Amino acid sequence: MFESCGIVTLLTDFGTRDGYVGALKGRILAHDRKLRVIDISHAIAPGDIRAGAYVLLQAAPLFPPGTVHCVVVDPGVGSDRSAVVVVHEGHLFVGPDNGVFGMVAPRPSQVYRIEAIALPAQVCQTFHGRDVFAPIAARLAAGEAVTEIGSVQRRLVALDIARPQRSRKADGRVQANGEVIHIDRFGNLITNIPACWVQEIQSDPAHVVTTLGGKRIEGVVRAFAAVKTGQPLVYPGSTGRIEVALRDGSAFAVLNTPRGTRVEMEWTEGPADKGGGLR
Amino acid sequence: MFESCGIVTLLTDFGTRDGYVGALKGRILAHDRKLRVIDISHAIAPGDIRAGAYVLLQAAPLFPPGTVHCVVVDPGVGSDRSAVVVVHEGHLFVGPDNGVFGMVAPRPSQVYRIEAIALPAQVCQTFHGRDVFAPIAARLAAGEAVTEIGSVQRRLVALDIARPQRSRKADGRVQANGEVIHIDRFGNLITNIPACWVQEIQSDPAHVVTTLGGKRIEGVVRAFAAVKTGQPLVYPGSTGRIEVALRDGSAFAVLNTPRGTRVEMEWTEGPADKGGGLR
Amino acid sequence: MFESCGIVTLLTDFGTRDGYVGALKGRILAHDRKLRVIDISHAIAPGDIRAGAYVLLQAAPLFPPGTVHCVVVDPGVGSDRSAVVVVHEGHLFVGPDNGVFGMVAPRPSQVYRIEAIALPAQVCQTFHGRDVFAPIAARLAAGEAVTEIGSVQRRLVALDIARPQRSRKADGRVQANGEVIHIDRFGNLITNIPACWVQEIQSDPAHVVTTLGGKRIEGVVRAFAAVKTGQPLVYPGSTGRIEVALRDGSAFAVLNTPRGTRVEMEWTEGPADKGGGLR
Repeated sequence: MFESCGIVTLLTDFGTRDGYVGALKGRILAHDRKLRVIDISHAIAPGDIRAGAYVLLQAAPLFPPGTVHCVVVDPGVGSDRSAVVVVHEGHLFVGPDNGVFGMVAPRPSQVYRIEAIALPAQVCQTFHGRDVFAPIAARLAAGEAVTEIGSVQRRLVALDIARPQRSRKADGRVQANGEVIHIDRFGNLITNIPACWVQEIQSDPAHVVTTLGGKRIEGVVRAFAAVKTGQPLVYPGSTGRIEVALRDGSAFAVLNTPRGTRVEMEWTEGPADKGGGLR
Repeated sequence: MFESCGIVTLLTDFGTRDGYVGALKGRILAHDRKLRVIDISHAIAPGDIRAGAYVLLQAAPLFPPGTVHCVVVDPGVGSDRSAVVVVHEGHLFVGPDNGVFGMVAPRPSQVYRIEAIALPAQVCQTFHGRDVFAPIAARLAAGEAVTEIGSVQRRLVALDIARPQRSRKADGRVQANGEVIHIDRFGNLITNIPACWVQEIQSDPAHVVTTLGGKRIEGVVRAFAAVKTGQPLVYPGSTGRIEVALRDGSAFAVLNTPRGTRVEMEWTEGPADKGGGLR
Repeated sequence: MFESCGIVTLLTDFGTRDGYVGALKGRILAHDRKLRVIDISHAIAPGDIRAGAYVLLQAAPLFPPGTVHCVVVDPGVGSDRSAVVVVHEGHLFVGPDNGVFGMVAPRPSQVYRIEAIALPAQVCQTFHGRDVFAPIAARLAAGEAVTEIGSVQRRLVALDIARPQRSRKADGRVQANGEVIHIDRFGNLITNIPACWVQEIQSDPAHVVTTLGGKRIEGVVRAFAAVKTGQPLVYPGSTGRIEVALRDGSAFAVLNTPRGTRVEMEWTEGPADKGGGLR
């Protein structure tokens, strides 16, 4: 059973200069003025579902149980893509079924397809954020049951994102392959390689070698301060993925590695792999 | 009688990187910490009254009755332009009298000029947002009567915006002329031509021809999905005006039609104009 | 004694496109969903401590007593810089000890160093905003005593910012030297010269001469409207510092004066210096 805590978050690709975000907030507060509307981001690049999925993963799970997340990165608005409510770990997610929930809820408890009958007759087919998602999010946050709004849908559209690979060689060498999945404001490169793969290494982490964009980086560290200014570093990032940064600079600007750039990591596992840990 | 719901929205051209928006929020909450401050936009181009007017129209009417909207797009700050409170359909609007309320409240119920006597002695003449509009908005939202703050003013300064024209020819042809009044983040072109003019057409909407920037677009549709990727489309937009977009792209980038670009629409009315409707 | 009013403000250099801000909000609301989270700015340039300090000064003091300000402009995250809680004039400031509090609280009542023991075992060393500052801000705003979180620290790291100079000549001429410390969105130049120095002048303020970037500007005024469109003006700014602007334009674009540009002002004091005041 979902019990609302009265908070609705907003994550969109609307930018803030056109009033679209304000329209969503107005709709939500007009439904119930006691609801609390919290901005996650409105700076997702237009239609960039993968960025929306990553940002949602970064922020949404930290909200209290009972939060409703209204997600509008919706290049297919007005097409036959379905509008859904996703139930996952005590949170509700409302938005288009286009993969945007693929990172935060890869295996959701339930998915409901929002039924046309739950909506007003007049829906603007280019602005479902205002006319579908925000009102539905408000109704759910105000206590309405998701079963009154939608019917069960079997699965979500998959997010188009590469899976990282890991292989162990006979000689004890381990190789992990992944790619850059997000580049943040600071030019830090977030990869899809799970940090836990590398944190499992109990050997000297200095033996880990990371290669991307023709650049070879030795070692894994925990903090920017572990390397000198201008030097690259590889570290377990804040969403549990390996990241690559440049101390006091932008790794993206220097390494020139767009999203999708292949990342390879290699290290040796062995009997000496006890104790230690990252600097 | 205006009854506050305790919500103050903010719409400014301040951007968010200088702390000016934070100053407004601080002032409002310092007056009454129970008030709720909601951002509509701070990304209006500096001094762009027409953009402020459009964004206000997009967002403000959706808020619940009893909302106070604090609008600071104020290139004439410190001049003799008056500071006003506009009463319109259960909402209050506080800001400079420079046309910015011309779209959301073209015929307001009442207009009050904020009197100097209602203000503190020390007002910074370059930052009325902080020293005039935010405090006044807070006082109104906290329950103070507008009549204690200002005196009745007869009318508002007009918004400098073109009016669309419609003409019916003897042969049944109808021509509508307007212009691009706003270009949104997605590159969609919002015109000043009322969508209801076109929705009145009961004939085949494919017979409508729209011309702008040397480009001719046939038909009117409801959703992006009605045309192929990369194709332009004409549709009734989310504020009840005709809009022009490019599916999965930016109409502005392709058509190169700045704000003010002339838009012409033409169609034929006739006895067959029954039923149908837009795709 | 600090008594929380339940408001937490956020000031960061995170931008809004990565979800980092959302993560902070989630953490705060997960600690206590009744807290109110207010954005001051997330548009500080990456690692720009001086800009953070100025924006904090612009906004924070206007909030009601009992506000907790969470400030994350933290290029030294994960290094040995300390994390602090600053007590100043009824407000609490939480963030890195790197100078960012140097303008808003040049002489704070108390400073506490946040102790590791007050934190969870798992702190991501690249994201103290999420794992240190936001949770600590939430705990303080929810009523926890600062003495339970940190131990007294003697002083703060100084902000690297120039001090303005003033000298009186034998002939009654006064010269003030300073520099541009901030350039706002409108291209207005904020200097570090206190406006009160100039407001003390009781002589004709038209006799004040300001020189910067090879440009000489005569007079000091109160409002943009005191000069013609396209003309530069010198005026007492909204944070009590002398500012330079261009009416209906950007002083920065025209004068080409980056942050750090030297500013000189000169005027004559004399027996006639009574009455008058700025236009």
